[in-house]
Amino acid sequence: MPLTAPDRLFPPEQKQKDLARALYRSVADLPIISPHGHCDPRWFAEDRRFPNPSDLFVVPDHYVFRMLVSQGVRMADLGIPRLDEGPSETDPRKVWARFAQNYHLFRGTPSALWLDHSFEHVFGIDQVLSADTATAIYDQIEAKLADDAFRPRALFERFGIELLATTEGALDDLAWHRQIRESGWSGRVVTTYRPDAVVDPDFEGFAANVAALGALTDEDTQSWTGYLAAHRKRRAFFKSFGATASDHGHPSAHTENLSHADAAALFAKVLSGDFTTIEAEAFRGQMLLEMARMSLDDGLTMQIHAGSRRNHAAPVFAKFGRDMGFDIPGPTDYVVALKPLLDAVGMEPDLKIILFTLDETAYSRELAPLAGAYPALRLGPPWWFFDSYEGIKRFRETTTETCGFYNTAGFNDDTRAFCSIPARHDVSRRADSAYLATLVTTGRLREAEAFEIAPDLAYGLAKTAYNL
Amino acid sequence: MPLTAPDRLFPPEQKQKDLARALYRSVADLPIISPHGHCDPRWFAEDRRFPNPSDLFVVPDHYVFRMLVSQGVRMADLGIPRLDEGPSETDPRKVWARFAQNYHLFRGTPSALWLDHSFEHVFGIDQVLSADTATAIYDQIEAKLADDAFRPRALFERFGIELLATTEGALDDLAWHRQIRESGWSGRVVTTYRPDAVVDPDFEGFAANVAALGALTDEDTQSWTGYLAAHRKRRAFFKSFGATASDHGHPSAHTENLSHADAAALFAKVLSGDFTTIEAEAFRGQMLLEMARMSLDDGLTMQIHAGSRRNHAAPVFAKFGRDMGFDIPGPTDYVVALKPLLDAVGMEPDLKIILFTLDETAYSRELAPLAGAYPALRLGPPWWFFDSYEGIKRFRETTTETCGFYNTAGFNDDTRAFCSIPARHDVSRRADSAYLATLVTTGRLREAEAFEIAPDLAYGLAKTAYNL
Amino acid sequence: MPLTAPDRLFPPEQKQKDLARALYRSVADLPIISPHGHCDPRWFAEDRRFPNPSDLFVVPDHYVFRMLVSQGVRMADLGIPRLDEGPSETDPRKVWARFAQNYHLFRGTPSALWLDHSFEHVFGIDQVLSADTATAIYDQIEAKLADDAFRPRALFERFGIELLATTEGALDDLAWHRQIRESGWSGRVVTTYRPDAVVDPDFEGFAANVAALGALTDEDTQSWTGYLAAHRKRRAFFKSFGATASDHGHPSAHTENLSHADAAALFAKVLSGDFTTIEAEAFRGQMLLEMARMSLDDGLTMQIHAGSRRNHAAPVFAKFGRDMGFDIPGPTDYVVALKPLLDAVGMEPDLKIILFTLDETAYSRELAPLAGAYPALRLGPPWWFFDSYEGIKRFRETTTETCGFYNTAGFNDDTRAFCSIPARHDVSRRADSAYLATLVTTGRLREAEAFEIAPDLAYGLAKTAYNL
Repeated sequence: MPLTAPDRLFPPEQKQKDLARALYRSVADLPIISPHGHCDPRWFAEDRRFPNPSDLFVVPDHYVFRMLVSQGVRMADLGIPRLDEGPSETDPRKVWARFAQNYHLFRGTPSALWLDHSFEHVFGIDQVLSADTATAIYDQIEAKLADDAFRPRALFERFGIELLATTEGALDDLAWHRQIRESGWSGRVVTTYRPDAVVDPDFEGFAANVAALGALTDEDTQSWTGYLAAHRKRRAFFKSFGATASDHGHPSAHTENLSHADAAALFAKVLSGDFTTIEAEAFRGQMLLEMARMSLDDGLTMQIHAGSRRNHAAPVFAKFGRDMGFDIPGPTDYVVALKPLLDAVGMEPDLKIILFTLDETAYSRELAPLAGAYPALRLGPPWWFFDSYEGIKRFRETTTETCGFYNTAGFNDDTRAFCSIPARHDVSRRADSAYLATLVTTGRLREAEAFEIAPDLAYGLAKTAYNL
Repeated sequence: MPLTAPDRLFPPEQKQKDLARALYRSVADLPIISPHGHCDPRWFAEDRRFPNPSDLFVVPDHYVFRMLVSQGVRMADLGIPRLDEGPSETDPRKVWARFAQNYHLFRGTPSALWLDHSFEHVFGIDQVLSADTATAIYDQIEAKLADDAFRPRALFERFGIELLATTEGALDDLAWHRQIRESGWSGRVVTTYRPDAVVDPDFEGFAANVAALGALTDEDTQSWTGYLAAHRKRRAFFKSFGATASDHGHPSAHTENLSHADAAALFAKVLSGDFTTIEAEAFRGQMLLEMARMSLDDGLTMQIHAGSRRNHAAPVFAKFGRDMGFDIPGPTDYVVALKPLLDAVGMEPDLKIILFTLDETAYSRELAPLAGAYPALRLGPPWWFFDSYEGIKRFRETTTETCGFYNTAGFNDDTRAFCSIPARHDVSRRADSAYLATLVTTGRLREAEAFEIAPDLAYGLAKTAYNL
Repeated sequence: MPLTAPDRLFPPEQKQKDLARALYRSVADLPIISPHGHCDPRWFAEDRRFPNPSDLFVVPDHYVFRMLVSQGVRMADLGIPRLDEGPSETDPRKVWARFAQNYHLFRGTPSALWLDHSFEHVFGIDQVLSADTATAIYDQIEAKLADDAFRPRALFERFGIELLATTEGALDDLAWHRQIRESGWSGRVVTTYRPDAVVDPDFEGFAANVAALGALTDEDTQSWTGYLAAHRKRRAFFKSFGATASDHGHPSAHTENLSHADAAALFAKVLSGDFTTIEAEAFRGQMLLEMARMSLDDGLTMQIHAGSRRNHAAPVFAKFGRDMGFDIPGPTDYVVALKPLLDAVGMEPDLKIILFTLDETAYSRELAPLAGAYPALRLGPPWWFFDSYEGIKRFRETTTETCGFYNTAGFNDDTRAFCSIPARHDVSRRADSAYLATLVTTGRLREAEAFEIAPDLAYGLAKTAYNL
């Protein structure tokens, strides 16, 4: 029996199911556009084999290990490296065994769907992971990983990826991207400009980062003008490695439109290290506007990922650092927050700002009304916890009626779990097909229109939104 | 092929669909009660033909043109008049062509359903609007508009409208309503008392408006007592033109219960023009209570439309003015906000206050619990962005379990798009029939009960809520 | 015709319905675990007959009478006792008549489902309650109540209750629980430690309550150390009457982690009666952490019921007191609020803190991400207004994808309406079966997995979460 049901995510009623399946088939084999994500470019630069099943599926994926942790498994027992270099499990087979015996925890979650899809479609597994099957499945994956057909570039090609965007900090030298380009490999892997470390006064080492930015660009980043010029140079550098977008992971969507003098003074303040939380927020907000203005010049699409309360568990952050599954969303305002930016550049038809949220209440109340009015705005796909069947369903149901399909930006997998990329796009294509089929069978859309929209959602809108 | 599917909005599963259809048929031909909306009474006073298809469907309808604007069409190119009298498209055929070539943007939105319904059922169109069909459809509508059967009064009668309420400001002379009454026409068009311009200190020209209110009523509106007396007189005047309701479009649902002395002092303050945003909010809040008290005396139903952040795009507001599609909702609190008013009059069984929201999170958390307890409260139908299939579904699913059907207030079309009135009531009747059918087929309601409730939702509850 | 449909709450599509029914049948006869509720232990101590139908179904149940009140029935006419001992209806037949003639108000609500289920399955009624049937049904219930088979203990056994937890204040002498234990009856009725009256500075008589706590425990509750020691003693006393949990009904989920000195000073402040609302909130917050720490020692599961704005209608509170149907939810933050507590004890694998909410927006945004990461957290079932078919559906749809099934805590009926207990558990078992069937038929769960999960949701998870 296959691990994943052939008609998964289609509506149970027969007429709807048949139409959903037909719509899905019309897009299932389209190439994958992955315009935002966190794969490591080194994989494609070096093209070395992945080390072992645990290091592929468990250790780097906070979606996966936080679920085990939530039921009492200790992070160190899952091989998560400790900042203090205290003991952490080093035997990947023991990590895998702990994962396998708790695999039932994922029932009903998208992680189960993605993992089963990867196991089945990438590695040919046909048994459900459990304590009983742990060793056999480990051995099977381990054997495949030793095969050249399972190296990063081969998988990239087999997955049908037309373009994959990674995300690098402003100070990154893009050496792996350079190596990919110089290798002559035809796979299209591009970078994305993510300047949080030099934009957010609360980021660890902010002042040093800004100084490093100056050194890299030969600009005086102690002055507001030089600092902005340095950003412009880095953006151009990132563009030279294929970047078509910038990305901004701010705690809120707050924006500012300060005068040059006020912005310069604020910059000096935050650079001095002697600033309030309100000043930090204002500076991040001003920088969103500056980035939007630069986008007007250089054409980079701007992504705003707002609303995560990062590193919620102090002891986990102290012992294991960032991105450990303890980033928790909170209410996020967009209407007041974005007004300064939108008053300045929101009516620009050539600007593209893609908004993401972890606060689903904003979809129908704020984001769809905003995206359904301002030419500069597009609505990003469901993010993080909401990149799932129900999440996608709620997204479509709460946004389409207000902003339609064409103010949305296609799908992002936003993942660092490489093998899950086909699975995630598959879920998105199926869930959107199901939604379109529901619209048609309830008389809200014509069948021919649905067949036009389906490839836009799966492929076309992402290319448009990211200028690809 | 008809533009609209005969079984649209019914559930796909056959038993549910059959029951939904039967419920719908039992209410489809009931007269339309439109107790809240923004049609222009002048149409029915003068009964002149509508000028052309673009001026009927595009130019006055911010639901429609904002969607085109969101994808880069310029407002001036759609013929939206500019405040500065700068150039704006004057050829209705060119406006129509831009509308038609972007008609795909509306796919999946209620606007598409309303427009197609109007095209088909009012004008007999049988082709989907597009660049290709634009001219033919324009010509067909244009030809019909020249026919007497398509004048406002004839359409009013053909639409089966039993009552239509318009909305006029407190200073309006109701001349068009007078003309309707004096014309001897049998159509029932009534007004609604909307005093925002003389109640909201932030309204343009507030002090002058209050002075004009004094002149109109022969009351000293510079004094708190005289100001209240002037409201009472205007309410009586509006009642004499059929008004059974007042309407209040406040940024929040904030209410106050100040002493006479404090209220008088606050009134003097806001009248002076020297007031804070908090004082403006307090004054609006006090006036909600004053209006509720007057309702206890004169029996007008009170409508509170709270939570829109008006005129969000500063450049659009500067160039084109109000109601241009850039009113964006935000989070709206009702529980704390309404407490002063509810403590004062919430237990009055003869008072009717209808609450509307643009923040759907308030349905299950605040509005249904409030309406399910206080005798004075009724829950208004889904408003604005939520007057749609999914919006109505979510409204019923999140309110019925807590406040039932009988604490709701029937349907409002709330539109200035006259030809969409039958379409909107049709959507509401279908969506409610679908919901009732779902309750019955899942054993949550008896079939006979559903057939009793359906006409209440389509007709009866609106009459009760608005004392019609 | 039965009052309740045999396939109620199952999905209408045949394949889903068949599977839902099969899942339901696999759990329908499991014993009832009721780990949180408000039944009166006196019923089971004395085992006297219930006085009459109105005192069983209407007078004590604010779910029921608030709906009648919302449509203009006066509370006094429903026999609700007044604090001022003013006149209130004393004839239970008249109360019943008013209830019956308004029974249509409950259409579409869970109250209707629970009442019909109780009428049919407990009392053998086969007619719908209405003005016409009021007397006959009253007589039928009245006759049954006189029968020994309808006394509390007999019903308890007939309902298949394995364990019922009541909720008592910290000062309660647990005399009824003692009487139950000493009676030799085999029914398992346990208490729960609810210390709000001695923890919340805003509670009526807080200082006196704290003094009484000292008297009861022989501890100096005027000192912070003595006060904490007194709590420990009372918790031990409650444990000796079977308590496995504490319960905390706070207006918010705010927590604090103050130093011993700061906490002692704050305690002195709130005890003095001279404190601000912020200090009251801080003290309640500190006490949540103290209770969590005590739970680490004594193993009591901790329940946090946050977010109700109690006694919203001042005139109702003045005339009738607490718990009169006018407790209205509001937005509730968990992410910032719980951080101090979670930083201190959130990673403890042996601690169990169950979170409840009346703000459904928190499910997907805050509560599932928190419960899906912190080992100490479990997500409580839908509470109060959300203990219903749609409420349970939304709960599962918005939490499962992020935290799975095993971070949830089974079902609570949380009721003071004894006869509704089987009905409420039945609704929960049906709604969960429907959800599981939907997951299976859409390929998100294997059928065998669903049959494993169903009994956990109906029975197993509650036992685990409450250490039963």
